[in-house]
Amino acid sequence: MSGNTFGTLFCVTNFGESHGPAIGCVIDGCPPGLPLSEAIIQHDLDRRRPGTSRHVTQRQEPDAVEILSGVYEGKTTGTPIALLIRNTDQRSKDYASIVESFRPGHADYTYWHKYGIRDPRGGGRSSARLTAPTVAAGAVAKQWLKAQYGTEFRACMTQLGELEIPFEDWGHVPNNPFFAPVADVSAYESYMDALRKAGDSCGARIRVQASGMPVGLGQPLYDKLDADIAYAMMGLNAVKGVEIGAGFASVAQRGTVHGDSLTPAGFESNHAGGVLGGISTGQDLEVSIAIKPTSSILSPRDSIDIHGQPTEVITKGRHDPCVGIRAAPIAEALLALVVMDHALRHRAQCGDVRQGVAPIASSLL
Amino acid sequence: MSGNTFGTLFCVTNFGESHGPAIGCVIDGCPPGLPLSEAIIQHDLDRRRPGTSRHVTQRQEPDAVEILSGVYEGKTTGTPIALLIRNTDQRSKDYASIVESFRPGHADYTYWHKYGIRDPRGGGRSSARLTAPTVAAGAVAKQWLKAQYGTEFRACMTQLGELEIPFEDWGHVPNNPFFAPVADVSAYESYMDALRKAGDSCGARIRVQASGMPVGLGQPLYDKLDADIAYAMMGLNAVKGVEIGAGFASVAQRGTVHGDSLTPAGFESNHAGGVLGGISTGQDLEVSIAIKPTSSILSPRDSIDIHGQPTEVITKGRHDPCVGIRAAPIAEALLALVVMDHALRHRAQCGDVRQGVAPIASSLL
Amino acid sequence: MSGNTFGTLFCVTNFGESHGPAIGCVIDGCPPGLPLSEAIIQHDLDRRRPGTSRHVTQRQEPDAVEILSGVYEGKTTGTPIALLIRNTDQRSKDYASIVESFRPGHADYTYWHKYGIRDPRGGGRSSARLTAPTVAAGAVAKQWLKAQYGTEFRACMTQLGELEIPFEDWGHVPNNPFFAPVADVSAYESYMDALRKAGDSCGARIRVQASGMPVGLGQPLYDKLDADIAYAMMGLNAVKGVEIGAGFASVAQRGTVHGDSLTPAGFESNHAGGVLGGISTGQDLEVSIAIKPTSSILSPRDSIDIHGQPTEVITKGRHDPCVGIRAAPIAEALLALVVMDHALRHRAQCGDVRQGVAPIASSLL
Amino acid sequence: MSGNTFGTLFCVTNFGESHGPAIGCVIDGCPPGLPLSEAIIQHDLDRRRPGTSRHVTQRQEPDAVEILSGVYEGKTTGTPIALLIRNTDQRSKDYASIVESFRPGHADYTYWHKYGIRDPRGGGRSSARLTAPTVAAGAVAKQWLKAQYGTEFRACMTQLGELEIPFEDWGHVPNNPFFAPVADVSAYESYMDALRKAGDSCGARIRVQASGMPVGLGQPLYDKLDADIAYAMMGLNAVKGVEIGAGFASVAQRGTVHGDSLTPAGFESNHAGGVLGGISTGQDLEVSIAIKPTSSILSPRDSIDIHGQPTEVITKGRHDPCVGIRAAPIAEALLALVVMDHALRHRAQCGDVRQGVAPIASSLL
Repeated sequence: MSGNTFGTLFCVTNFGESHGPAIGCVIDGCPPGLPLSEAIIQHDLDRRRPGTSRHVTQRQEPDAVEILSGVYEGKTTGTPIALLIRNTDQRSKDYASIVESFRPGHADYTYWHKYGIRDPRGGGRSSARLTAPTVAAGAVAKQWLKAQYGTEFRACMTQLGELEIPFEDWGHVPNNPFFAPVADVSAYESYMDALRKAGDSCGARIRVQASGMPVGLGQPLYDKLDADIAYAMMGLNAVKGVEIGAGFASVAQRGTVHGDSLTPAGFESNHAGGVLGGISTGQDLEVSIAIKPTSSILSPRDSIDIHGQPTEVITKGRHDPCVGIRAAPIAEALLALVVMDHALRHRAQCGDVRQGVAPIASSLL
Repeated sequence: MSGNTFGTLFCVTNFGESHGPAIGCVIDGCPPGLPLSEAIIQHDLDRRRPGTSRHVTQRQEPDAVEILSGVYEGKTTGTPIALLIRNTDQRSKDYASIVESFRPGHADYTYWHKYGIRDPRGGGRSSARLTAPTVAAGAVAKQWLKAQYGTEFRACMTQLGELEIPFEDWGHVPNNPFFAPVADVSAYESYMDALRKAGDSCGARIRVQASGMPVGLGQPLYDKLDADIAYAMMGLNAVKGVEIGAGFASVAQRGTVHGDSLTPAGFESNHAGGVLGGISTGQDLEVSIAIKPTSSILSPRDSIDIHGQPTEVITKGRHDPCVGIRAAPIAEALLALVVMDHALRHRAQCGDVRQGVAPIASSLL
Repeated sequence: MSGNTFGTLFCVTNFGESHGPAIGCVIDGCPPGLPLSEAIIQHDLDRRRPGTSRHVTQRQEPDAVEILSGVYEGKTTGTPIALLIRNTDQRSKDYASIVESFRPGHADYTYWHKYGIRDPRGGGRSSARLTAPTVAAGAVAKQWLKAQYGTEFRACMTQLGELEIPFEDWGHVPNNPFFAPVADVSAYESYMDALRKAGDSCGARIRVQASGMPVGLGQPLYDKLDADIAYAMMGLNAVKGVEIGAGFASVAQRGTVHGDSLTPAGFESNHAGGVLGGISTGQDLEVSIAIKPTSSILSPRDSIDIHGQPTEVITKGRHDPCVGIRAAPIAEALLALVVMDHALRHRAQCGDVRQGVAPIASSLL
Repeated sequence: MSGNTFGTLFCVTNFGESHGPAIGCVIDGCPPGLPLSEAIIQHDLDRRRPGTSRHVTQRQEPDAVEILSGVYEGKTTGTPIALLIRNTDQRSKDYASIVESFRPGHADYTYWHKYGIRDPRGGGRSSARLTAPTVAAGAVAKQWLKAQYGTEFRACMTQLGELEIPFEDWGHVPNNPFFAPVADVSAYESYMDALRKAGDSCGARIRVQASGMPVGLGQPLYDKLDADIAYAMMGLNAVKGVEIGAGFASVAQRGTVHGDSLTPAGFESNHAGGVLGGISTGQDLEVSIAIKPTSSILSPRDSIDIHGQPTEVITKGRHDPCVGIRAAPIAEALLALVVMDHALRHRAQCGDVRQGVAPIASSLL
């Protein structure tokens, strides 16, 4: 209940600090008999890994995952799957200057007041590095959901700072360091280069999607599928906003427009984003998140120290000038974890997913 | 785990259907010794109650609450507080026509596919009527938080359909049926009258605030305070988007602007919305939510029936043309429930809230 | 987390005090489509009901249950089932004398120290009356388990005070007020009459059994099926000991005797009590519990009051001279709730129960 | 919810298999600021360690624990504490013969039917080796409880097979391999030698005690302190019975005897075992458990294989002829985990433990 476990039936317990010996997680509740290997998990970890382009932190972490338990002869056994990632590239001296002062926009101030003690090395527990075990767990969820229902997850960047990114094609996403769905990312590269030179940072907007969704996942009243998606996304470091389907645009829509009408062939639109009354419709889940600009910047900021005295903070070290750039695979993983958990919850109460009930839901946006 | 319990330590288990004998909730985990009466709870229920202006549903429900347990001689005893609200004004015949067809934008389709059975009377379990027990539970949380920390909650409407509502003063909110922070609401009255005449509906945007917040509430990693706020708000019927602090505007902000700097007198801005690293800073919590247009409208919509055959749906009955109008007290209650739960979670792990650690956080937006 | 909810997937939240307006529970997680009526639940409540023989409390409570939600046209809908039982025969004046003193063997002392406030009327929340909602919830679980797997539950008394009760036949159990599996209960009637005359009370031992068990229910490592059974039984008022299968007798057994050997026709004995490694074998679950003598007795006892001053306590009012007499239907209900919860947990992780895997387990003791 | 997490606020998630790469646990919810080192944890692990006398398994495992997270500069930070123990002495070939057959008294049969897949090496997940992480977590709980309340835990053997062990003095317990509270253990050594020679095994009875208990821990209604103790103890491998206080002897006691009377100096007896109404009285917690004879024995047993065919099983490998011998430190750890969890739950709802309320509870048996 201290908030380090994600999910109720597919439970991921995350541990570790940015500069401690290791980070990792324990997945409890994974169905038995699922083919699983370190390679499958490593694939998603590599997509999140730092140091892969000049636009992200230059920390070099192989993020090599070791499966400690729960897998026997290449298959899950139904017992806890412990995943371990050793930290290898810690440069704790970078952080000596901020041991006693609170970096604006960071968790330093709140951790100090909550716990009365704080591991300042690399942000300690509040570091975005702790999203790596989440990604690893998400890879396991994806593996099961694809095998069971054919459900798949993907994410892309739709805005970088002030620059909106038009949607061209999902196929472009793996071909550029921005996870942008466009062929030409030169404008974004220049934008980031200028920002880095200025010692500043910017935010981003990410779109996340699940396709091949089963109908009927989600629990009314409180644990709606969209409520849990919002929880998952807002819990990701630096996220300040979450939308499902039409999102904030729905405020200005009319009921005659917003409510997705139905025909025997399926839904005619997807303003709902794949969720009605908290339960999946079978349409694509459509989620959008707002990521704030990185708080670790080279420009000096006013702050105070732990004694309440004024001070000035410059955050050296190796940081992402836009944390949103590496957010796409993490957001995918979070969406997969939510769907996975609700798939098991549905199965517990209602048995197998009901198929063949008219009409066939079609995926539209 | 079927999603009808809110909270982990201050647990609210909600039950009931729109047209069943009763709705209500059981609150488990309330600290003992808190003064509590039906009148305290009724006050907030009355703010949410239907039938109070021509702009909301004309269903006449007194929503009179009865305390069944957990209170002895005017004080909570630490045992479960059961709250009962009898349904009195059900007109189930209004719903006969939609027993076998799925209303666009409603939960009919998803409940049917999830459960294979559906109580169609008034939306059954998916009705917004089920927010009443949430409001009742929120009143208990508010009572404790005010006594313990001086924390207070309020909400107002900031947009109605296309009309943005400027912020004038919190004092106006109780004086108009829109919970609008303005003196003159005639424009909104005309807007709603026209909409109702057209058989259509619109969305709304609501701002929710907690002031007098203790520092240190919230749990990293997953159960961040803002993550749980997003969960609570997105779980409210018809909500499609949630923002904390600067929200989606933070995408286009620079790090030099977004990160709230500190002085010995406190924070100099509140783009964070009162949360850093998932933990409260002591500043005001600032939350904004998007509510979609009501799906129950008089205009005919294309749909299908449970056999997959095409049909046309007109939703008669007594509905809110903008469900956002009555959302303010519900959103307050949800925010109070989240803060309450995290207050108890903090106390479990860390003991009393740490006060006197420099600097004193000031509330700003 | 305040301990008033039983189960993780089939969740029963219990509320009420002995002399408050009502007691009851909310069942969350019940599968949809289960035939359910008040009559089905009332049947088990009537078996537990007070006032039915001279050997139990003379409090006259009809314990009439009302279903408030979760059932539509005679079937469960998958939404919470709220059950309400109004208290009708409270004589709170009986308890005036013990408002400020602690009755030996009762929860008065501990509630006072825990909460700093105590509802003294009839024991308030600590009254065995609160087992009624548990029995009601158990009736729902039994209904589903019988329909789904053919699992059935029964219990009988095997010892009354010093008197061991030989096992003759399950058929005798409903025919006497002791739930004794014997034809002639005259010895127990005389024993109880003498005890009552002496103003004293005695304990009892109850055997509980589930037959027609599916194989594979239970979770290693901590939430073993037998661990959860022990939790359920020890949580029943006045229980001081729990055994599974051979129980304490297994201490003196040899491994060559205790381990139940297997043949193609099934197990050859059932020392395990139907559980191996925390998971059901398909054999009968065999549980035995020790119930202490009733603490409410007419004989005067030394005690102290809330100011620490010595006092003498005589517990008037209407009490069971042996609370074990009415324990059989409650113990059945608790066992049913444990099995139900694990049935859903199994289904969540592993899908349907695996049948046809050799060998067929046979039920033996 | 797959049963590998112990506790609700002080949560211990256990992972690993007997012959996998590693075992361990993640502790979530530990209060910050607690002095903690590997040496403190290792001390308890060494007391449980195999290979330390001829009466236990000869497997040589150093069980060296590594703290991976949650501790900074020798103190807990409030973030998850991950503990890792590498497996070093696996001899999986010992188990080749039982890959396809079910050992009587073991979890082989039930795991196979539950999961459809089974790691047979050393019992896989069902091995008693998995109690090591529980002991490690218990050491952390003990550390906090001693610092906070002065609570201490100890356990001893009170019966070995048919031999009852008289209680002489707690001081003897660390001086013999049986954890027996007697000076001369030669009778038990001869007993075990004979048993080992016969290829057989025996059970044991263990007494567990907590002293220096705070008053007021435990939650009515279901999560009573004694209910959770029973859950913890029955969840320990091979346990078949649990008693609190007078236990099964209370069946034959009279109410005039059993109910512990009170004087201004405290309770006059402790038949309750330190718990009334599910809440701690401040007296010593007194618990007794029955442990069945080891199922892994050299004597041949009738069984079947996974195809339902009859077979004979001889369990070679290195096993404890009485698993109860090493159970004392594990039972202590489990009791500490239960008390720890309830201490945090109490603090969440009721704040600090209420002291100075008359009378002072004294510890008696």
